[in-house]
Formats: sequence, C-alpha cells, structure tokens
Amino acid sequence: MERDPFVVVGGDAAGLSAASKFRRETNRDVVVFERGQWVSYAHCGLPYFVEGSVDRLTDLLSLSPSDIAERGIDLRRGHEVVAVDPAARTVTVDAGDERFDQPYSELLVATGARATTGDFDASLDGVFTIHGLDSAAALDAYLTAPDAYDPARLGDGPVDEARVTHNAALDPPTRAAIVGGGYVGVEMAEALTARGVAVHLFQRSGHVLQPFGAAVAERVEPHLTERGVTVHTDATVDRLVGDERIEAIVADGERFPVELAVLGVGVRPNTAVLDGTGVARGPNGAIRTDAYGRTSLPAVHAAGDVATARHAVTGTETWIPLGLTANRAGRAVGATVAGDPTPVGDVAGTAVVKAFEMECGRVGIVDEAAAADAGFDPVSETITAGSRSGYYPGGDETTVTLVADRTTGRVLGGAIAGRDRAAIRVDTLATAIEADLTVAELERLDLAYAPPFSPVWDPVLVAAKVVTGKL
Amino acid sequence: MERDPFVVVGGDAAGLSAASKFRRETNRDVVVFERGQWVSYAHCGLPYFVEGSVDRLTDLLSLSPSDIAERGIDLRRGHEVVAVDPAARTVTVDAGDERFDQPYSELLVATGARATTGDFDASLDGVFTIHGLDSAAALDAYLTAPDAYDPARLGDGPVDEARVTHNAALDPPTRAAIVGGGYVGVEMAEALTARGVAVHLFQRSGHVLQPFGAAVAERVEPHLTERGVTVHTDATVDRLVGDERIEAIVADGERFPVELAVLGVGVRPNTAVLDGTGVARGPNGAIRTDAYGRTSLPAVHAAGDVATARHAVTGTETWIPLGLTANRAGRAVGATVAGDPTPVGDVAGTAVVKAFEMECGRVGIVDEAAAADAGFDPVSETITAGSRSGYYPGGDETTVTLVADRTTGRVLGGAIAGRDRAAIRVDTLATAIEADLTVAELERLDLAYAPPFSPVWDPVLVAAKVVTGKL
Repeated sequence: MERDPFVVVGGDAAGLSAASKFRRETNRDVVVFERGQWVSYAHCGLPYFVEGSVDRLTDLLSLSPSDIAERGIDLRRGHEVVAVDPAARTVTVDAGDERFDQPYSELLVATGARATTGDFDASLDGVFTIHGLDSAAALDAYLTAPDAYDPARLGDGPVDEARVTHNAALDPPTRAAIVGGGYVGVEMAEALTARGVAVHLFQRSGHVLQPFGAAVAERVEPHLTERGVTVHTDATVDRLVGDERIEAIVADGERFPVELAVLGVGVRPNTAVLDGTGVARGPNGAIRTDAYGRTSLPAVHAAGDVATARHAVTGTETWIPLGLTANRAGRAVGATVAGDPTPVGDVAGTAVVKAFEMECGRVGIVDEAAAADAGFDPVSETITAGSRSGYYPGGDETTVTLVADRTTGRVLGGAIAGRDRAAIRVDTLATAIEADLTVAELERLDLAYAPPFSPVWDPVLVAAKVVTGKL
Repeated sequence: MERDPFVVVGGDAAGLSAASKFRRETNRDVVVFERGQWVSYAHCGLPYFVEGSVDRLTDLLSLSPSDIAERGIDLRRGHEVVAVDPAARTVTVDAGDERFDQPYSELLVATGARATTGDFDASLDGVFTIHGLDSAAALDAYLTAPDAYDPARLGDGPVDEARVTHNAALDPPTRAAIVGGGYVGVEMAEALTARGVAVHLFQRSGHVLQPFGAAVAERVEPHLTERGVTVHTDATVDRLVGDERIEAIVADGERFPVELAVLGVGVRPNTAVLDGTGVARGPNGAIRTDAYGRTSLPAVHAAGDVATARHAVTGTETWIPLGLTANRAGRAVGATVAGDPTPVGDVAGTAVVKAFEMECGRVGIVDEAAAADAGFDPVSETITAGSRSGYYPGGDETTVTLVADRTTGRVLGGAIAGRDRAAIRVDTLATAIEADLTVAELERLDLAYAPPFSPVWDPVLVAAKVVTGKL
C-alpha cells in the first residue's frame, strides 16, 4: 500500500528546502501547504528591493511555482493548515472554499516567524513592518509619487494588488521613523535614505545592533549620522500619532512629524498550527526540536524560524531565526524523512549586516554577561587593526571584539565592523567557534596575507593575540 | 655573571619579531646582525611600490631603526654573520672594516630566502628579480623616464643610490617579459601594466599560479588577457638576449623584443651561515626545525623563510616561505628563548594574490596527486557560485575547488577565485583545515549570510555540499 505523503506546512526557506531534498532522495509524495500566495522568497532581500537596488519584486524569488512543480513537489498555495492531529496523523487544511483532512506519514512544520508590532497601531497608512513581499511592495509603492509609480516594479507574481494600489495613490513620505535599531532597522535606514527620505532611527537600548556589542555600534552609529540618519538611543517610542495616516511619532514625550514609520521591534515564531497538540516548546515559545529536527510529537518535525536549535557555544536550546540555518535545517529534515538521518546542525548566531559602507558581523556569545550566564568565565577585548597593509591604499580600520573563556581558553564569540571586507571575516570566527578552537589556536591559524586583502596579522589574529595575552 | 646575549641573524620579519617579543618578555640583551642596510621591510609590498600605488619606498618599512632601538634591540646593520661555532656558542661577524666573534647564549638564524635567477644572465641592464627594497627602487627608476624621475620616491632610507641613479638614467622600457607565473609574476604583470608597459608572461607549466590549481588559473588567465597581458603557458624561456641591456627574450625558439625582464623563477633559503655546522636540513635544503623552532644544533633556532615547518594537513616537514608564518615563528622563538615555550605553529600554505580585479586564495593541499602522495584518498570538486544573493548588485561568480579525504572526510585543501571578496574567504577553509574539520562539518558551519556579502549558501558551503555528496 502507498504510504501517506510527507506533508510540509510552509512554503519558504525551510519548507521548500525540505521538500526539494526529499524529492532528490526519493520518489515518494510530498505535499507543501502554504497559506499565502508567495513561496520561496528571500526575506533578507526586502530592504534592498525597497532601496531600489533590486529591480523587481519577483527577483527575490528563489524558485518559481513551475520550478517547484518540476521538482515533483505538490505545492498548494492559499492552503492554511489550521490543526494537526498527531494521533491520527492528519492535518486539517483550510483552502478558503473547502476544508479537508490530509493524512501524512511524516509532518514538517516550517511556518516561520512573523514581525510583531508591539503596542503600536500598525493599521495606520504609512506604518509598515518589513515582512513578506506584500509589505515590501506596499512600502515601495508608498515611497513613490503617484504619477511616477511603475507596476513593472512588481514583476509577475501574486502580489496583493489592492494594497499596492492603495499605497501608490498616497503622497510619498519625506520623513520617516524607524522603530528598532536591529538588522531590519539599520538596513531600512539605508534603504529609506537612498529613497530620499529623512530618517530618525529609534533604539530602546543604549546602542544599535544590540547583538553585535557596543564596539560595533560605536562604528555604526557615527557612520549612520554621517550619512544623514538621526540616531536616537536609549529612546522609548511612546506612540504613533495619526488619524488615517501617520502624522507623527512620539518618543520620550517629544513629537517627531513623519509620514512613514517602519516597525522593526521583533519577530515571533508562528506556532499556532500546533496549538492544542501539547508539543514541547523552547525559548520564545518556539517549537522544541532535537538534533534531527524532531519535535516531541511522533512523526512531527519542525525547522526554520519556528523551531529551536542547539547553540554551538553553549550546547543549549536557543531560538535564533536566520536564513541559512532555516535552509539547512529544512534540507536536513528532508534527507532524514527520506531515510538518510541528517543532523540539522548547530546555530552559532552568525549574522552580518551592511549599514551604508559599514560592514558588520557577529557570531557566538558577544555579550560578557550572557557568557557568564551560560557558565563561562568570559574575557573580552576589542581591538582595531588595518584591513590591509598600512601602505596599501583602500584599507580601513577594522574593529574586532573577541570573547573567550578564561578557564578553557575557548573562543566564545566575536564581532567585527569596518568598511573593507570586514563582515565576511566573521566566518573565520564562526569556523573557529564551531570547531571549539581555543584563542591560542586561533592566534596560530595560518590565515591569508597579501597587502590588498590583509596585513601580516589579520585583525582577527590581532584580537586573538590580545585575548591570549589576557588569559 | 651576565649571560651572553640572544643573537639573531637577519633583521627582517622573523628576526625582528623574535627580538621584539624577546624584549617584551625579558630585559636580557638581544643583538640582531643584518648584513644589509634595510631592516623590517614588507617584501610583499614591493610589486605595489613598483606599480605606483605606494608613494615612497620607505612606506614599506614596518619599523624604523629608531623604533627598533626604542624596543631595546641592539641592531647592527652592515654586519654579516659568516660562521657559527655551535660548540663555542659564538658567531663570527664580518662588519666590513672589522671581523669579530660574538658569543651567544641562544642563536636564531633568520636569514630568509633569496630570489634565484635560474640559468639566466641577470647582470644585463633591464633584468630584475623582485627581492629587497633596492631591487624595487632600481626597477621603479628604470620604469621612469630620466627627466621624470623623482628621488622623493625613495623616502629617507639607506637605498643603493648608485643602482638607482644608473637605472634612472636609462630609457624606460615599453615591453616586458615576466619569467614565471607565480605570485610575483602575476603581481608584477599587474604592476607593469599600470606603468604602461606591455607585458608577456611566461609560465613553464600548463597554467599560472600553479599552487592554486587549474580552476583558479582558468579564472585568472582570461582576466590577465582582458587586461592586456599576453600569457604564455607551457612555455620554456630559452635565454635573455642583449649586450649591456636586454634586447629580447627567446622562448620556445621565438624571439620577443623587450627592454625589461622580471625573473620570478623561485626562491631558495639562505642557509650558508650554517654551512659546515652539520645542521640537519629539510626540503629545499631549508634548516630543519621542530615545533619550537629548534634546529639540530644546541641553542640554535631557525625561523622564517630559511626554516622548515610542520604542514597542518600532512603533519610532515615542509618548506613554504611566506610572511605571516615567518613573523609568527620569529615571535614564538623570541618567547621561547625568553623562557615561555611557545610553538611556532603549523603552516597550511595559505596564500592569497590579487591579479587586477581577480582575487585568489589557496590553502592546504589543492593538487590531487600531491594529496595521494601524502597518503590520502583525495576527492576534489570545483564549483562556481555567486558571491552575493543573485538579486543583489555587484556580486561575481566565485570559483571554489575543495579537496577532501575519502576515508576520513577531512578537508585537505581548497582554492578560491573571484572578483568580490573571494580571497579572504580562504580563511574559512584555513580555519577548517587547521581544526581538522570534515567536509560534512564544514557544510554545517553557520557562516555569514546577508545579500550584499553572501548568498544563503556561501560558495564555500556549496563546495562542501558537493564534495560531501561524492564521499
């Protein structure tokens, strides 16, 4: 008898990576239910579409529906899975005009995460979160003068046309507030500046890019200012003001007139599909998974932004929703379900972000207090060193924060900022961290040296030397 | 009684790193004998001085003699050590006008390497090796029209003025031959092109940049051609033709009229100082050293381009003269002699080179035959992948060759080429190799992803996926 299909809930990074890998390994059936119309899009590309450096919205799609069909994946868009019955091994699917139960042999929940709006009224015109192609399309339309809007920007995809049309008809903003100085906030500051909008960036804590540490922020904040962004740190945004359309933002009692607010205040895992199943949860309510992406429910996997993962440094459960690890976890689950048990891999919290010309990277545990909480005895140093030999033109000071454990010497985390090939250097640290290298071993690595690319002692090695000297 | 000083032979990377580290750790005496006048210069910067992207010759100095004096190092320039008596623990020093014996408590031989000229007559005007500041100064003078030469190019250093004056008086060349397509050859092709000289590059084997493998060369060679360099591979240079000044080069029987020839045909360790001591030798006659830089002679260390080192992949003795490992080995010997035993570290053969816009890197064992010779069962794959998300502008195809051992899965080596941040990505592979990661572990690394810097799957990860699939 034919086995029931492998059912995947969610048609983005983790879900389609799983379905694709599964189909490469087996000819069994896989069904992907996606509640929306868009599938397989690059979330991280949204700011660059808004900025205008990506021509068409559909350029952000990795796979078209026909690519997906060619892979033998049964993709059902506009199909929302509203319930899971782990005992019966069925999901209940709401397809709009019908509702049905779909049996599964194995299930993958890959429903991702959603942008939150905090306590703010996100229903006003001119208020956006950056999540999903429709929000980017709407914001792009809003930023464009009504007589200048070109629908060719959308490409040929299932865009929410009513929302685009509505926003395209409004007068474009000249002033914007960005609430939240994380990746999205910083990337949107660059994007909106490129679109000619004056930007105020509000960050609740003491510095932007909190997970990158203070030293990176000390490079980024003056650079944002230099490029015309007004940065407010230790700032509490009280409310958004407006009737139909946003008119102002009030922060610490001060009123800033704006016609645009972008909310980058956080994301939450989309776990509702498993409500009522008693599935085990981890940090932030994310679905708890093991080394193979298995949940506490039989034959139910979770992967990507909805799921927890093991942290490479602490070995404990964590929730860090990012693109590569979502793709990888999905791919691993696809292989596992197909019969080739494949670990999803640890997450090291590696992240890189561009802020105008400034490149920033971070990995592992950068914050000393967090390292102490995890049971380490952290030693942290920040250095600056040239990105190239001093005599070679075009280099830039590169700032490196390196954190190690005093007891074992192990590298725990690091962060990097600079204008010249700085971000990609975090990969050296990510590799060292996942390989459990000590800082003395890091110091002795035979890294690249040539005047146009690195001084004799790469900034990463300089940091390692200084931290080794403190142990 | 005062101990005899720590004596260092050679005042460049390894020697001065050793002396500096020694003085930071102890107040004992250190004497550095340098036979020439230049100390502490950046050999790797010479092509960029010739190119004109470095303003003054003395910009290539890391430390001035007064910096060195401030560190408490007794530097004696123009002092050649002509013999070592390991039994008596003395060196014989020829200071030009006097010759004396200097006792030592410990000795470091850091005499570096020299460029060879093969069978070619390097005494003709217009024939250069790129080794030492004087050769770069002379070539720069030769490249400049007599009435345009500005001695300010030299800065304020102990340059060989007669050689510069002689070359500055000659008509500048319009056509050049570079013999040897290694790093120096490729870098000089770029430098001479920038100086308006038409370049023929002759490489004896089938492709340029031999240690980087064929796939890198397949990117570099067309790029050199595109930039106006004529590349001759599988080419044997028969002889240089000329009376006083070079007039032509003959390769495979064909005559190429040139006014300049740059010889980049290899380097040899400067071991003569230990002739007659019976010191043990390794590959290429380099001085054999152990994990702490000790030679077979009591109290005699060697470091840098004159010494062997342990290869990170094979664990066997090798001779790979490069800048970082010379600096590091010297520094480690300085610490060890000061009383803090410090391993010199392995070498992984990490190298990066810029060829116009093309960035290339390599590490470990790239050549399958060499891997087999070292006892591995190599699996090698070459892939190309984007350096950025496909929709983000400014990226370039990045070529990655990855070599792993079929039996253990261990990463053995890799090479990279591309125009967008390609070279520095080799550090990821260097770290993985020195940490003994398998290719499956490499594939699961949490590396950086953001559209401006890397696609979801970095080219290194794509290569790891493909090689893992072949194991």
